[in-house]
Amino acid sequence: MTTPTPSPSLSTPPAPSPAPLRLGVAGLGTVGAGLLRLLQREGDLLAARTGRGFEVVAVSARDRSRDRGVPLTGLAWEEDPVALAHRPDVDVVVELMGGAEGPARALVEAALRAGKAVVTANKALLALHGTELAALSARHNAPLLYEAAVAGGIPAINLLRSGLAGDRVTRVGGILNGTCNYILTEMDRSGRPFDEVLKEAQAKGYAEADPTTDIGGWDAAHKLDILASLAFRPLTFESLQVRGIEAITPQDLRFARALGYRIRLLGMAQEVPARSPQAGHPEATEETRIVAWVGPCLVPSSSRLAHVNGVFNAVVAEGAACGPLVISGAGAGEGPTASAVAGDLVALARGAALPVWGVNPPPAPVAGGSVEELESAFYLRLLVRDQPGVIAAVGKALACEGISVHLVSQHALEASEASETTDQAGTDIPQTWMTVVTHPAPGHAMARATTGLEALDCILQAPLVLKIEPLA
Amino acid sequence: MTTPTPSPSLSTPPAPSPAPLRLGVAGLGTVGAGLLRLLQREGDLLAARTGRGFEVVAVSARDRSRDRGVPLTGLAWEEDPVALAHRPDVDVVVELMGGAEGPARALVEAALRAGKAVVTANKALLALHGTELAALSARHNAPLLYEAAVAGGIPAINLLRSGLAGDRVTRVGGILNGTCNYILTEMDRSGRPFDEVLKEAQAKGYAEADPTTDIGGWDAAHKLDILASLAFRPLTFESLQVRGIEAITPQDLRFARALGYRIRLLGMAQEVPARSPQAGHPEATEETRIVAWVGPCLVPSSSRLAHVNGVFNAVVAEGAACGPLVISGAGAGEGPTASAVAGDLVALARGAALPVWGVNPPPAPVAGGSVEELESAFYLRLLVRDQPGVIAAVGKALACEGISVHLVSQHALEASEASETTDQAGTDIPQTWMTVVTHPAPGHAMARATTGLEALDCILQAPLVLKIEPLA
Repeated sequence: MTTPTPSPSLSTPPAPSPAPLRLGVAGLGTVGAGLLRLLQREGDLLAARTGRGFEVVAVSARDRSRDRGVPLTGLAWEEDPVALAHRPDVDVVVELMGGAEGPARALVEAALRAGKAVVTANKALLALHGTELAALSARHNAPLLYEAAVAGGIPAINLLRSGLAGDRVTRVGGILNGTCNYILTEMDRSGRPFDEVLKEAQAKGYAEADPTTDIGGWDAAHKLDILASLAFRPLTFESLQVRGIEAITPQDLRFARALGYRIRLLGMAQEVPARSPQAGHPEATEETRIVAWVGPCLVPSSSRLAHVNGVFNAVVAEGAACGPLVISGAGAGEGPTASAVAGDLVALARGAALPVWGVNPPPAPVAGGSVEELESAFYLRLLVRDQPGVIAAVGKALACEGISVHLVSQHALEASEASETTDQAGTDIPQTWMTVVTHPAPGHAMARATTGLEALDCILQAPLVLKIEPLA
Repeated sequence: MTTPTPSPSLSTPPAPSPAPLRLGVAGLGTVGAGLLRLLQREGDLLAARTGRGFEVVAVSARDRSRDRGVPLTGLAWEEDPVALAHRPDVDVVVELMGGAEGPARALVEAALRAGKAVVTANKALLALHGTELAALSARHNAPLLYEAAVAGGIPAINLLRSGLAGDRVTRVGGILNGTCNYILTEMDRSGRPFDEVLKEAQAKGYAEADPTTDIGGWDAAHKLDILASLAFRPLTFESLQVRGIEAITPQDLRFARALGYRIRLLGMAQEVPARSPQAGHPEATEETRIVAWVGPCLVPSSSRLAHVNGVFNAVVAEGAACGPLVISGAGAGEGPTASAVAGDLVALARGAALPVWGVNPPPAPVAGGSVEELESAFYLRLLVRDQPGVIAAVGKALACEGISVHLVSQHALEASEASETTDQAGTDIPQTWMTVVTHPAPGHAMARATTGLEALDCILQAPLVLKIEPLA
């Protein structure tokens, strides 16, 4: 019989210290000012939850004179944010400046080196320098928390760390960029083209003046890299495959809808089994790999993701035992992001911070596999000559790669889509849209088939090929 | 200047003890056997996450000879589950028997008294005896965790405890009963009546032989009571207002759909401001109250809850700063429930268990306010005489209580709904369905208006009145 031993670590936390946790906040934009407001408004509630309150002791921002609607009297002001890391009266550095390099990176590194806990909302910093930061955090025993870096007010990091703590995560991702989701759903709703809706999004403050990070899929990729690194193992950012939404037209949204789908920019990561051991080497160790990609896809109209509209985000996390979970909410904004930062502060005050990637020492990062290893159905949008034999030619190009077709349909060009294509003699070529939905096929077969299609005489434009994700 | 003090509690957990956490599991039905399978399958993963593994040392169940598909060799067998609480080699008692009284209650109480941590999936036990159990847990410094008690695989408890730890929860609830959601969505899909679909659900194992707990709303109410107690403060179960789905007909689902809604059984709890201080007593302290109710409602077809179909559950949690979050997934079943239990075990192994209702000592329970205090739009389904003047009479009965009408429509009875109503002379009364959608109005006004409607000669059946919940 096992000797009975007491298990003191199971007990609820001991009576907490009354000393408030002292914060140094760098960055007083929307989120920084929002955090100060939240701490002021909910101070008593958060103190009751943690047994100790929070006290902002020092701040740093670009413009000292700007009115942010929160009183800064009594707070120390640091011109150089990095100075927050060296103040003896700061327990926790809260980094809300953004940017993968420069002062944000310098501050976070300095704070971890000084053994101070760090809370950040900086997705690019984590995605690009997570490996070094996780090592610093482990070496100096300084927690680094980043709930606000992914999907704003949706506690996605907490879902992976605690909610699914008892399960093996098999897939993670979702609708991770509100700007793209706004643009796609607004194009769908109004039938207006990409450029026009992007301009409107910029006017409304949903898109940056330089929108490349958002519409190119890079912001979603930063978040996906963080989710995948936590759910599986650290993933080098360079190995993610990223496509933006620039090529999506109102026609695609219309065609997708008619086929029973919606188009969403998704970022998804999953473990895939390694290729089977080679013949003659049956003993070769099977290792799973992670495939992570960002790109516009078709999701079934009946799926939960199809009903996430506008600037909202949704995170999908699938457990081997619990199946797929979908959590949706506000992916950005003052309140949601401040709420996420405050959640991390509560975790710190409770002494419940976990290692950056879940385990210490942090595992070395690996490169993700190719999205072409994945099998899925595909949607193709082709501009073709309106003449007999085209369907046969397209079908043959797909069949050559073993891809079978589920559905083909043709759609006349609308007046606004008037052809500008002429043949060598300058005569207008009669043309039509053709959409194809395939049965599930490996991505590499689809890539080869696309090359085959591009070579066809009857195809007048590079085909648009989108994955169809059968997400619940 | 504040004296700098070190903050040791912020650091990541120290190198953990290698001793596995020793479990005594009571109940080896679907969930119990599923937990044993999960611990076996994911043992290494969970050990890596927590720094210590889990070891099942003793079990207790009704039938020792039954083959459960998991090997029980080497495990101690206790005929009396309560004996698990007294075994010195058990660190954590896992209660998966169910039932608010009897052996489940006796075991949980004995384990807490013995200072052992308890993990349970028992919603009725928590809802009905949460106050006593929270007191026992606090007194004996023995954690009591219950993630699996609410919404199966959806980590709703963790969402409130950790995900929204930095925010004030303003509303919580959702689709909390898979049986009712299956019945309602299947009635909607197929047009079949309640009784027929219930029988099918029983045949499929989605409903119990005695379905009262599910279809009467009591199971959802147990879960809602737990969510509300954690989000706000402990709530006496008796004060919840509970309606089941028995009165919903295929016609209601059809009418709701035509009006742009779906019908779902919801359980919702929210804080409402106290009535204004009485005149002459402006200094009276304003206290918020909690209103918690379960009942079938209309939700907009475009809302996220309208797309939660079949046996799935969805939890809505609204933070003052982060806005509404919706998380959906499997609400029951072997894998999802085992995943939730294992998540609690991981929290214990990490030393991250929190007090039962979030704070110690546990607050005294309060009675919830009346659902009639809440304002909402309403749907009315009326069987009326098919004659001029009926709309005027209905409109007047509503106007008398200050309720204005948004929409009225009439729907001819279908052949299958052939009238059985005759007047005193035995002649068939010509009749028709009338549906009314009101503008938002206080619940007590609607209750009085309903009494008024019932008294009308032209109303041939007690009106069905459902709240319309404008949930995102």
